[in-house]
Amino acid sequence: MKQTFRAAALSALLLSSTAIAGPADSVAWDITADLTTEIGARPAGSEREAKARDWAVARLKALGFQNVRVEPFTVTGFVRGAETAELTGPYPQKLHITALGYSAPTPKGGLSAELVYFPTLDALKAAPEGSLKGKVAFIDHAMTATQDGSSYGPFGAARRQGPAIAAGKGAAGVVIRSIGTDMQRNPHTGGTSWPAGTTAIPAGAVSLPDGELIRRIAQTGKPMTINLVLEGKAQPNMPSGNVVAELPGSNPALPPILVACHLDSWDLATGAFDDAAGCGIITAAALRAQQGGKPLRTIRVLWAGSEEIGVFGGAAYAKAHAAEPHALAMESDFGADRVWRVEFNLSAANKPLRDRLVSALAPMGIAAGADKASGGADVGAIIAAQKLAVVDLNQDGTRYFDLHHTPDDTLDKIDPKQLEQNVVAWTAVLKVVANEPGVIAAAE
Amino acid sequence: MKQTFRAAALSALLLSSTAIAGPADSVAWDITADLTTEIGARPAGSEREAKARDWAVARLKALGFQNVRVEPFTVTGFVRGAETAELTGPYPQKLHITALGYSAPTPKGGLSAELVYFPTLDALKAAPEGSLKGKVAFIDHAMTATQDGSSYGPFGAARRQGPAIAAGKGAAGVVIRSIGTDMQRNPHTGGTSWPAGTTAIPAGAVSLPDGELIRRIAQTGKPMTINLVLEGKAQPNMPSGNVVAELPGSNPALPPILVACHLDSWDLATGAFDDAAGCGIITAAALRAQQGGKPLRTIRVLWAGSEEIGVFGGAAYAKAHAAEPHALAMESDFGADRVWRVEFNLSAANKPLRDRLVSALAPMGIAAGADKASGGADVGAIIAAQKLAVVDLNQDGTRYFDLHHTPDDTLDKIDPKQLEQNVVAWTAVLKVVANEPGVIAAAE
Repeated sequence: MKQTFRAAALSALLLSSTAIAGPADSVAWDITADLTTEIGARPAGSEREAKARDWAVARLKALGFQNVRVEPFTVTGFVRGAETAELTGPYPQKLHITALGYSAPTPKGGLSAELVYFPTLDALKAAPEGSLKGKVAFIDHAMTATQDGSSYGPFGAARRQGPAIAAGKGAAGVVIRSIGTDMQRNPHTGGTSWPAGTTAIPAGAVSLPDGELIRRIAQTGKPMTINLVLEGKAQPNMPSGNVVAELPGSNPALPPILVACHLDSWDLATGAFDDAAGCGIITAAALRAQQGGKPLRTIRVLWAGSEEIGVFGGAAYAKAHAAEPHALAMESDFGADRVWRVEFNLSAANKPLRDRLVSALAPMGIAAGADKASGGADVGAIIAAQKLAVVDLNQDGTRYFDLHHTPDDTLDKIDPKQLEQNVVAWTAVLKVVANEPGVIAAAE
Repeated sequence: MKQTFRAAALSALLLSSTAIAGPADSVAWDITADLTTEIGARPAGSEREAKARDWAVARLKALGFQNVRVEPFTVTGFVRGAETAELTGPYPQKLHITALGYSAPTPKGGLSAELVYFPTLDALKAAPEGSLKGKVAFIDHAMTATQDGSSYGPFGAARRQGPAIAAGKGAAGVVIRSIGTDMQRNPHTGGTSWPAGTTAIPAGAVSLPDGELIRRIAQTGKPMTINLVLEGKAQPNMPSGNVVAELPGSNPALPPILVACHLDSWDLATGAFDDAAGCGIITAAALRAQQGGKPLRTIRVLWAGSEEIGVFGGAAYAKAHAAEPHALAMESDFGADRVWRVEFNLSAANKPLRDRLVSALAPMGIAAGADKASGGADVGAIIAAQKLAVVDLNQDGTRYFDLHHTPDDTLDKIDPKQLEQNVVAWTAVLKVVANEPGVIAAAE
């Protein structure tokens, strides 16, 4: 199988030879395949995440990286328990549910209550104070797929903020339509947050087909009741850590290029799209950028821990490395589909650098977008702290939220040809930025 | 929602107006939507199947059918229990599994054993006698989608016969790659059979992505171990029944046209494709065939019970109605995608009838195939007993085995436009055959 996909990746490369910066290798595929096969699910703070760190250290050393180390920290994780849901009225129907990260557990025997339907998060916000006392709120939404993934921000609010808003109105529990764009009978998990002063309540997401069923029944006007069992709960002081490694540049005086992915995954799948592939892409590209001569600048890879439950790895990295200058940061954490656009946060003085990057990417069908690059979750803290320059290689997100945080985020979803296009694009960028001798800086 | 889809069905109808035999209605959609929403899963022999019979009687009466009745029988059903599976070596990985119908239960605490990989059913057949003693066999396959669904026969043998073959070689359990063509993290259930002299063993199916994982690991050559919990078991003497109803023809002396679907579903989903839609299609078409004048022949609808676990309803119907002549039988039990082909089992003397049917279907893009029509599962017994004439309206099966017997067989998968095309095609056929005054007979 590995050989078969390696062959597929190679032939994809040959077919797209105009875009190639160097000879093909299967590093990105191998990292994605082996991490998902040999480790599998690796939730933040878990024993499997610890095994993944060991695996990452061994793999990065074997690939020739230097200064390979784990930078440990602790987190409050979320440990999943039994989870079931059943509509008990007006029609008995089993629902496919999963707890949201940091959901409170249901009482023994489950939570049986009236289910109150809200077509949107705004409708929930408009519900009178106290009106949900003892009830379970259902939050629907109409998220659809977008190439740039921009629908996740506004529609994902139902998951991020909805449960706390329902709790504030007295709800005993909350169920959301999964934040996703598929129509498969698998729910999407993901973290929710409880602002200070809010007491956590049980919070789960049902699959989108189950959400359709609830909507259909709600529209008949018949009262709905639900039984909810969500036994997962938060657990403090779990061990986590970042894996950091370097390919030293020829001029140690120049600040390094930081490239990131995250090593942890949600527990429901093997985290191929999110984010084994990202680790594969940045690592393969860092290596390929060495071909034809060691770059001027060090390329540092960060495989961050505990991203999914609160970007704890990114915060730990920024804290640990606050005193070191960095030249520029990038991250790959949006699946493995093709890069279609590049965005920048570069100073006006870096226009020649930007122009060279645009030229290097054009043969791959990648054009510059109008927005300012923001980096990814795991480099967010260090970018903010040091006002770093950023290059974003935007991946096609059309099917990303079909798979995101579901049991379906598995290796079979990775297209070797698109994965390779990512590596080629990243290599092109790294060759340019890691060989830039002048100051690299962000715009104001 | 219902109104929305009703509107969609109507506009689909208007868009394909050349194919229309009569004014549009939403009977097929409403049956499919309401049965899946108000009853949901209705496994053979269950209380939910009994509720579905009550629902069916009420709906058929409300639609104007006559002689609406339940014809009861009892079955040995399969009652699902807890089901989990985990690869315990070489890499711990949770698997998504479901028991096959008539699986034996695993012992208390589950079955922990070596997992032996077979790439095909033939490879399992070639294993030496006794070589699987105490082990769990894994049967892989390479089924791909076909428009006519013909890949289900040969590849489905891994489910139907594989477990008994493994048991015969001493296996303690068997796991198959789901018989399906999707790549979703949901397993496909379905019945397996234990020939006389075979002792049932625990038998389950993992999702196709989990099958890919097992294949990948097997190809490394590392020994695999599994823990299997499958607590479902057979249960004798469960109540089931057929629902039979009629639209009487103007000439009671002519034998009726029998049109069938099945009312039961597997327990993992709401059975929209399999087979609520079939009941919707045949029922809507029987009603539309009355428009413009009552046909000569009675149209009898059979909503069969307990199809999924052994076609018990079809056998009961053939037994109960052995003494009554029938003119011709048809069935809809292959989803709700468009009819693309028609096949016949008609005598040479019925060539003019056949020609009229071919002419009636051509405007819908439906052409005659070369094979002899065989009918569906639920009419199989009466066709065999009475050597009945048959017309098969073949539906496009390209995505049928993506959904078949999975948790994903839900209403959202039904395309109202294609559902309506089915009703239009069925109506055209029923108008011709129910108005045939002469003898309708099968070929030799």
